[in-house]
Amino acid sequence: PTHFAEPGLTVALHVQIQFADQKQEFNKRPSKIGRRSLSRSISQSSTDSYSSAASYTDSSDDETSPRDKQQKNSKGNGDFCIKNIKQADFGRREIEIAEQEMPALMALRKRAQGEKPLAGAKVVGCTHITAQTAVLMETLSALGAQCRWAACNIYSTQNEVAAALAEGGFSVFAWKGESEDDFWWCIDRCVNVEGWQPNMRINCIMLSKAGKLCVPAMNVNDSVTKQKFDNLYCCRESILDGLKRTTDVMFGGKQVVVCGYGEVGKGCCAALKAMGSIVYVTEIDPICALQACMDGFRLVKLNEVIRQVDIVITCTGNKNVVVREYLDRMKNGCIVCNMGHSNTEIDVASLRTPELTWERVRSQVDHVIWPDGKRVVLLAEGRLLNLSCSTVPTFVLSITATTQALALIELYNAPEGRYKQDVYLLPKKMDEYVASLHLPTFDAHLTELTDEQAKYLGLNKNGPFKPNYYR
Amino acid sequence: PTHFAEPGLTVALHVQIQFADQKQEFNKRPSKIGRRSLSRSISQSSTDSYSSAASYTDSSDDETSPRDKQQKNSKGNGDFCIKNIKQADFGRREIEIAEQEMPALMALRKRAQGEKPLAGAKVVGCTHITAQTAVLMETLSALGAQCRWAACNIYSTQNEVAAALAEGGFSVFAWKGESEDDFWWCIDRCVNVEGWQPNMRINCIMLSKAGKLCVPAMNVNDSVTKQKFDNLYCCRESILDGLKRTTDVMFGGKQVVVCGYGEVGKGCCAALKAMGSIVYVTEIDPICALQACMDGFRLVKLNEVIRQVDIVITCTGNKNVVVREYLDRMKNGCIVCNMGHSNTEIDVASLRTPELTWERVRSQVDHVIWPDGKRVVLLAEGRLLNLSCSTVPTFVLSITATTQALALIELYNAPEGRYKQDVYLLPKKMDEYVASLHLPTFDAHLTELTDEQAKYLGLNKNGPFKPNYYR
Amino acid sequence: PTHFAEPGLTVALHVQIQFADQKQEFNKRPSKIGRRSLSRSISQSSTDSYSSAASYTDSSDDETSPRDKQQKNSKGNGDFCIKNIKQADFGRREIEIAEQEMPALMALRKRAQGEKPLAGAKVVGCTHITAQTAVLMETLSALGAQCRWAACNIYSTQNEVAAALAEGGFSVFAWKGESEDDFWWCIDRCVNVEGWQPNMRINCIMLSKAGKLCVPAMNVNDSVTKQKFDNLYCCRESILDGLKRTTDVMFGGKQVVVCGYGEVGKGCCAALKAMGSIVYVTEIDPICALQACMDGFRLVKLNEVIRQVDIVITCTGNKNVVVREYLDRMKNGCIVCNMGHSNTEIDVASLRTPELTWERVRSQVDHVIWPDGKRVVLLAEGRLLNLSCSTVPTFVLSITATTQALALIELYNAPEGRYKQDVYLLPKKMDEYVASLHLPTFDAHLTELTDEQAKYLGLNKNGPFKPNYYR
Amino acid sequence: PTHFAEPGLTVALHVQIQFADQKQEFNKRPSKIGRRSLSRSISQSSTDSYSSAASYTDSSDDETSPRDKQQKNSKGNGDFCIKNIKQADFGRREIEIAEQEMPALMALRKRAQGEKPLAGAKVVGCTHITAQTAVLMETLSALGAQCRWAACNIYSTQNEVAAALAEGGFSVFAWKGESEDDFWWCIDRCVNVEGWQPNMRINCIMLSKAGKLCVPAMNVNDSVTKQKFDNLYCCRESILDGLKRTTDVMFGGKQVVVCGYGEVGKGCCAALKAMGSIVYVTEIDPICALQACMDGFRLVKLNEVIRQVDIVITCTGNKNVVVREYLDRMKNGCIVCNMGHSNTEIDVASLRTPELTWERVRSQVDHVIWPDGKRVVLLAEGRLLNLSCSTVPTFVLSITATTQALALIELYNAPEGRYKQDVYLLPKKMDEYVASLHLPTFDAHLTELTDEQAKYLGLNKNGPFKPNYYR
Repeated sequence: PTHFAEPGLTVALHVQIQFADQKQEFNKRPSKIGRRSLSRSISQSSTDSYSSAASYTDSSDDETSPRDKQQKNSKGNGDFCIKNIKQADFGRREIEIAEQEMPALMALRKRAQGEKPLAGAKVVGCTHITAQTAVLMETLSALGAQCRWAACNIYSTQNEVAAALAEGGFSVFAWKGESEDDFWWCIDRCVNVEGWQPNMRINCIMLSKAGKLCVPAMNVNDSVTKQKFDNLYCCRESILDGLKRTTDVMFGGKQVVVCGYGEVGKGCCAALKAMGSIVYVTEIDPICALQACMDGFRLVKLNEVIRQVDIVITCTGNKNVVVREYLDRMKNGCIVCNMGHSNTEIDVASLRTPELTWERVRSQVDHVIWPDGKRVVLLAEGRLLNLSCSTVPTFVLSITATTQALALIELYNAPEGRYKQDVYLLPKKMDEYVASLHLPTFDAHLTELTDEQAKYLGLNKNGPFKPNYYR
Repeated sequence: PTHFAEPGLTVALHVQIQFADQKQEFNKRPSKIGRRSLSRSISQSSTDSYSSAASYTDSSDDETSPRDKQQKNSKGNGDFCIKNIKQADFGRREIEIAEQEMPALMALRKRAQGEKPLAGAKVVGCTHITAQTAVLMETLSALGAQCRWAACNIYSTQNEVAAALAEGGFSVFAWKGESEDDFWWCIDRCVNVEGWQPNMRINCIMLSKAGKLCVPAMNVNDSVTKQKFDNLYCCRESILDGLKRTTDVMFGGKQVVVCGYGEVGKGCCAALKAMGSIVYVTEIDPICALQACMDGFRLVKLNEVIRQVDIVITCTGNKNVVVREYLDRMKNGCIVCNMGHSNTEIDVASLRTPELTWERVRSQVDHVIWPDGKRVVLLAEGRLLNLSCSTVPTFVLSITATTQALALIELYNAPEGRYKQDVYLLPKKMDEYVASLHLPTFDAHLTELTDEQAKYLGLNKNGPFKPNYYR
Repeated sequence: PTHFAEPGLTVALHVQIQFADQKQEFNKRPSKIGRRSLSRSISQSSTDSYSSAASYTDSSDDETSPRDKQQKNSKGNGDFCIKNIKQADFGRREIEIAEQEMPALMALRKRAQGEKPLAGAKVVGCTHITAQTAVLMETLSALGAQCRWAACNIYSTQNEVAAALAEGGFSVFAWKGESEDDFWWCIDRCVNVEGWQPNMRINCIMLSKAGKLCVPAMNVNDSVTKQKFDNLYCCRESILDGLKRTTDVMFGGKQVVVCGYGEVGKGCCAALKAMGSIVYVTEIDPICALQACMDGFRLVKLNEVIRQVDIVITCTGNKNVVVREYLDRMKNGCIVCNMGHSNTEIDVASLRTPELTWERVRSQVDHVIWPDGKRVVLLAEGRLLNLSCSTVPTFVLSITATTQALALIELYNAPEGRYKQDVYLLPKKMDEYVASLHLPTFDAHLTELTDEQAKYLGLNKNGPFKPNYYR
Repeated sequence: PTHFAEPGLTVALHVQIQFADQKQEFNKRPSKIGRRSLSRSISQSSTDSYSSAASYTDSSDDETSPRDKQQKNSKGNGDFCIKNIKQADFGRREIEIAEQEMPALMALRKRAQGEKPLAGAKVVGCTHITAQTAVLMETLSALGAQCRWAACNIYSTQNEVAAALAEGGFSVFAWKGESEDDFWWCIDRCVNVEGWQPNMRINCIMLSKAGKLCVPAMNVNDSVTKQKFDNLYCCRESILDGLKRTTDVMFGGKQVVVCGYGEVGKGCCAALKAMGSIVYVTEIDPICALQACMDGFRLVKLNEVIRQVDIVITCTGNKNVVVREYLDRMKNGCIVCNMGHSNTEIDVASLRTPELTWERVRSQVDHVIWPDGKRVVLLAEGRLLNLSCSTVPTFVLSITATTQALALIELYNAPEGRYKQDVYLLPKKMDEYVASLHLPTFDAHLTELTDEQAKYLGLNKNGPFKPNYYR
C-alpha cells in the first residue's frame, strides 16, 4: 500500500481506469447522470486538506466560480480553467524555485531533449497541482509530449502555479476549493476534448465508454527509491514537523507509542528517539518486532502503555488500531495522530458520541473533551498527518516525478510486445538511474567497478547492481 | 548572555532600572519629552516579530487604537488597556491549556498558597504577554501578590490572553502591534499609578526620578536548569522547527556548517546529525573545538566549507561571523540563519547594496539575489531564528516562570541583610527545587539518599547535591 | 553471499555435497589418495583462526595427537575422537551457560519434544564446535535425531565442549588445532560408519561415490531474520569490538571510510557514527549510495579521502577494493580491516614485497612498515575481522541454530513431493516463527490481529504477515 | 572525585605527601618498621589488576625477584630495579608506537626544548609505568628535568617499557607483580637517594621525616579537558569495551539500568542507547534527573526495574548503591558492574555468605549462584570496570600527561609568591592550551578571532575564552 494516499501512482501507456490502489473503485463510475450519487466514493486523498506552504491567494480573490469565467492567456489561448490567469508571474517564480530542488528532472530535460523521446505522446494527468508538478509537466513537454492536467484533490491546487501553467500553454483544469461537482467537471474537460486522444496517462480518473482498457502500466510506487524516500526518510522528518506545527509539543522526555514498525514506523521511531522521546512500539509481525527490539524500543501491547503515553502514532496500514476503548484510557492532553494509510487506523467515528465535546483549537487540531474534563488532542481528524499538517520535501517529489517521467519514456518507446496488458514494476536499472540522477544534489561521488571486479561479481558495470527483490 | 533576547531575566526586590543585559541602556531614558528621539535604542527583542502559535485576532478587530477605547471588565474595573475585552473567554481557554503544561507553577500554587508568601508584594512586570505569562501572573496572585504588567515586545502580545487577564482583574497594558509610542505609554501606565508603589519587579523597563535604584536582584537567567533548557534542549528542537516552517528544507544529506559549539551549537549539531545532515563546526575555543571533534563533527574554518554547504547556522554570540565575503561565496540556494545572540552574527547590512536584489518570498524568508542569479535564503533578516520562526515550548517557559516565582519569594522573604545591593545567582538548592517540580511531568521518580549515603557523601539528604559551579 | 564464511549454511534432506556458496568446490574431491594434493582448496573458513571467548585448554594438555589416543566416556562408549574426555564437566558448564542465551532452542525442545518430529533422522553436521553448537545438537537429539559431528574449522573447536558432547554420547570428531590431514580424517570418521546411513546433513563436507546427490535442501542463510542479525545488528557491535580488542583505538573524532553500504556497511557506519567517528562511504550502487547520503554520510571515492582517514573498513563482497596504490597513500598509523566477505577485499598479496617490513605486534595485528617508517596496521591479515577478532553473540548463533533445526523438521516431515531436488528458501512463516521464539528474550509482547483486522488486511491471523520478498 | 582511581593526579612543586583524594591517608605511614602492619591501607588502585594491552612477558621470564638481581644497562648504569633489562628493545618499540598517539607531548618537546623550562627540576613520579608514561618521562627529560620513578600499582607495570627506560638512563623501580613489600621498597629506592633531593613530584607516595610538607600543588584532575575525556568520552567507549571483553553480551535489545547521570553515566547511557539497549536511569539530583528525561531515558528508582533488567551499571561515586536486597531480586544472568568510583558502589561483601556460591568463569568475571540456580554475573568483583577490563585510550592518557607536564612547567617557573601553599586548579588558559595541542590529531582547524570580534567580546585573542567555571 502506498504511503501517500495519492490515487494511484501508476503511469500507463494508454488511457485506462485501473488503479494501483485496488480499494478505490472509480472505474465503476458509469455516466455523468450517476455522478452525484457516487459522491461519497470520492477517495480520501481527493478531499484531504493539503498543506501547501505557499498559499497567497486565499482571501484576495473574487468569489466567481472559475467555471463561470472566461479567461485567456497572453497568447489568446483559453483551453484551461483556473482561478485567475493574472497570478501567472507569481506562479512562475514558485516553479523556478522548485526547479532548483528538482535537478534530476532538469538533467533529464538536458539529456533526453535532443531526441524528444516523448514526441507524439499525449499525456493526461491527474495529480496534486503544485510547483513540483509543473516542473514535471514542463519536462514532459520538453521531451516532446502534449499534456492536459486536472487535480486529484479538491484542496491542493496552488492557484498561481495553475495560472503559470495556463500562461505557458498547458491545458489545466483545477483550482483550490473545487466542489465535488467541479472535480468531475474538470476531469471531463481535461480528458474529453475534440480531436485529441490521449495515449498515456498519469493517475487519471476518467470516463470511458469501453470500461476498463487493458494496456501496459507501470507501478511507480513500489520502486525502491520511492519507497525508502516516501516512507523511511520522509516520515523521519515529517513526523517531527507535523507534530510541531500543530501542537508545538516538546519532544524531549515525552513518552510515545508508535503502532507499527514498518518503514514509516522505523522513520518515526528514529526521529523521536533522536529528539529525546521515550518510544514504545507495537507490532503484529514477529520479524519487525525483533527489529524494534534490536533498535532499542520496548515492544508492548497498546493496552500496556496507553495510560502513560503522551503521544500515540499509528503507522500500520491496518484499521481500528486505536479504538474508543484506548481513547477512553488515554491521559489528559494525549496527542493522537495517524502516519499510516488512509484514515482507518484511528476509530474517529467512535468519538462522535453525545457525551464527548469536540473543540477545534487550530486548523487540523481538535480537542475531544470527556465529561470529566480530560482532553485528547486529535490531529487531522485521524487522516494522514504528514499529508495534512506538514509539507513533503521537494526532493521526495523530485524522485517520484523523475520516476514517472522515466516510466513514461520506457513504456512509450518499448518495442511492441515487451509489455503486456499488465502492471509492471519499474525495471531495477531505471530505479538505479533515478537514484543516480539525484546524487549530484549531495555532491556524492559514485565508485565505478573495474572490469575485473565486474567480472568477479558477475555484474554489468552499469548495473543493475542488485536483484529486483533487493530493498 | 541570555539566549532568548528577552530584556533581562532578572527579578528584583524593589523597583530598579538595572538590566542583566548591560548592552541595553534603557535606564538612560530621561523623560517623556525625550522619548521619540530615543526610539532607535529600543532593544531588538522589543521589535522582533514573535511567532505566536495561536493568533486568532489578526483580522477581525476594528482599527481603533486601544488607547482611544474605554473598556471595562464584567465587574466594572477599567484599570487596563488592551485590544478587546470581549475576547476574554477565548483567552481563558488558552490559559487553561497552558496550565496543563506548567505543572510546576500549579504545584507551587498548591504548596505555597496556604501561607501566601507574597502577601503584600506589589509586582510590576514587563514580559511577553502570553498564556504562559498569564499562568505566572495568576500564580503570583494566588501567592498573595498584586501584579501590574506591560509587554516587552510590540508584536508578541496575545490579545485574547490580555483580555482574559483584564477580565480577571489584572491591570494589563499591552496589545499586539503597538507603536513605539504606545510601548512607552503602556509602561508608564503600568508603573506610575496613584497610591500603588511597586516593591518588586520582573524585567521592568521604567522611569524613575531616583535613577538607578540599588536593590538586591536575582539573575534568573544563569540558573543551570534554565540554561540547559533554553539552550541545549530547546535549540535541539527549534533549529529543526524553524528551518522547516520557513523553508521546508529536507535535512537528510544536507551539508551544514554550525558556527560555535557552545550549548546552542551542541543542540543544533545533535539534532541535524540525527536527521541525517552532514555537519561541520567552527570554533574559536580549543576546548569546545575538541568536544566537537569527539562528538563526530569536522572542525573547520568557515572558508574551507562555505562553497559547499547548504545551510549556515550561527551560534556564537559574536559579531560579523558571516560577512559579505562568505555570503558572496555561498552556493545557490544556501540558507543562512542565526541561532545565537541578538542580530549581530550575520552582517546583514553588507547585503543592502545596489547590485543585490531582495525578494521577500514568505514571512521571515528573504531571497537575496546576486547579479548572476544566485539566491541566498536569509531567514528572519539575521535575527534569532528560534524566536522569530518557531515557538518556544511551554515546558521551557514553565521552567523560567517557576524560577522567577521562586526568586521573588526568596527575595521577598529573605531576612534583612542576606541580600545586599547586588545581583545574585539563584541558590543551587532552588535551582534543584525548580527541576524537581518538573519531574512529575515525565513520571520521573527520584531516588533519595539513605542516611548512610548522605553521610558518606557529606551531603544534606535534601540537597543541594552539587557545588554551585556545577553545570 | 553469506557474511560469516561458514562453509554453506544449508541443511539438506539427504547426504549431499552441494554448497550454498558455489565458489567452493569440495564436491570434486575424488578419493582419499588425492587428498593432500587438494589441500590448498580448503576454504578460508576452515583455517581462519576463530576467537573463542573461553579457551582454557591451551597449555595444560599433553601433546599426544587425539588420533593416537584411546578414550572412552563414562558409559564405555568410544565412538568419538576429541582432545580430552576429562574436560567434560567443564564443557558441560559452558553448555549450560549457552542454554540460557538460546531460549528459542530450549522452547523448541519443549514444544516439539512430545511428538519427536525428528525420530529416525540421522544427521551429520560439520560446523564450528562450540557450546552453542552443542545446544543445537542436544536439541536435535531431544527431537529424536541421531547426530554425528565434525568441525568445519581447524582452530575453532572448544575442546571441553567436544568432551562434554562425547560424554553425553554424541559421536564427535574434532579438536582445536587439527592439521589439514586431521580435518579430512575427522570428516571421514564422522560420515563413513558401518551400518549408519545419514539421511540429513548440516553443512557437511564429505566423500560420496555417487558424486553430487540431488536432494532437496534449504538455504538457511538467506532468511530475513538471519540476514538482519548476522549483518546489520551483529556487525554494528562486532566492528567496535573487533577494532578495540586488536588496537584499543579511540573512536571519537576518528575519520573512517567504510567501503560498501549494504547491511554490513550500514551496521558499521551506524556504530562508528554513534561513537563520534566521522564516517565516509564508498558505493557502486546508486540506490545504496543515496541511502548513505540520507543517513548523513559523505559519499566519496576512495582516492578522495584515503590520505586523511584513520581507519579503512571494507564491506563490499567485492575483490581488490583496497589495492596497493591506496595502501601506499594511507597516512602513518592507518588501520585497515575487512568486514565483508572472505579475504579478497584487501589486496594483501600486494604487500608481500621486499621493501615493506611486516611486524606482528599482537595476535591478529600486523604492522606493515614502509621504507620511510610509515606503518599501516593490518588486522587479521585481511581476513574477516568479526570472525577473527571478536566473538559472535550467542543470540545471533541462537537464531541460526533455531532456523537450522526448524528447516530440518520441515524437510524431514514434508509430504513427499513438496520439495523437489532444489535449494529452497525457508518459508516466510517459519522465518517469522524463529523470530517469535526469540521475542521472550526481550520481554517483548506481540500484538495479535483481531478477526476484523485480519480480514481487512487479507492475512491469516497467524501469519505469514509479509510477502516473501519483504526484507 | 577523580574517576580513574589513580592515587592523586596532583603535581607539586616540592616533595609532599598530600593527596588529591583525601580519603587515602598514606601520609600517615610513619616508618619502615610499621610498614607491614599498614598493608591493608594500600589503595584500591595499587592492587587493581590493570589491563595492559601488550604483556609479552608473562611466562618467558625466570622467577628470580628483581630485588635479588644485579642488572646494568649498556652504559654500565645500574641505578634501577626492573624485571629484565634485555627487554629494552621490545619496550622501545612500544614507546615509539605510543609517541604517535601522543602528539601533544611531542609538540611540547619541540616548542619548549630550546629553553629547557625544567632545567634543574628533580622530579619523582609514582604512576602506572606504561609506554605512555615513558613518553611523559622522556618529555620531561627533554625539557631539562631529572626523573626517578616508581609504580603506583603492583600489577600495571609493562616490564619491557621499564627496561627501555632503564636502558635510556632513567632510574625506574617497578615490575609487574610486585608484592606489597616490594611496592614500598621501590618507592623508598626511588625517593631516598644520596645527594639527590627531589623538588617536584607527580603523585608520589613517600616517606618524610617532616611529615606533610606544605608546598604549592596543582590539581590536574579537575581540568575541563581531563574531566570530559576521562569521564564522558572515555566511558562512552570503555563501557562497551569492558562489557564485551568480559561477557560477549549483545547490547541490542538489552534492558540496562544506569545508576547516576553525571558525566560517566551520560557517557554510558549514550553508548548503550546507540547500540540499541533500552536504558533506565536512577538519580538523586533533580537537575541531572531532568537531563536524563530530556535525553530520552526513563528515570526510575532501582527497585522499579531491578527484576527486569539485563545489566546494572553504577556510576554514582556513592556507596551501597546496589545492595544485597537488589542482588537477590535480579533475574538469572543479570550482569552487574561498576563504572563509578573505587569499589564501594556495589555491596560485594554482602554476597560473601554461605548460601551463595562463587564461580570464577573468566578473568574478572564471577558467577554468583543462588540456591535456586540463579546466576548473577559480577564483573571485576565490583571494582572499576574500565580500569580492570578495558584499556584506556592513549589519547586520553596523552591529555593527562600533557596537563601534568604543563602544570610542572607552570609551578616550576612561576614567580615566587604566585602560588601559595595550596592546591590550585590548572589555569583556564593552560587547559585551553592542552586542548589546542590535541586538535591536530583530528586535523581540526581552529578559527581565530578578528581584532574587532575580540574587542566586541572583551576577550584576548589568544584566550582564555571562557570563565574558569565553564564546563
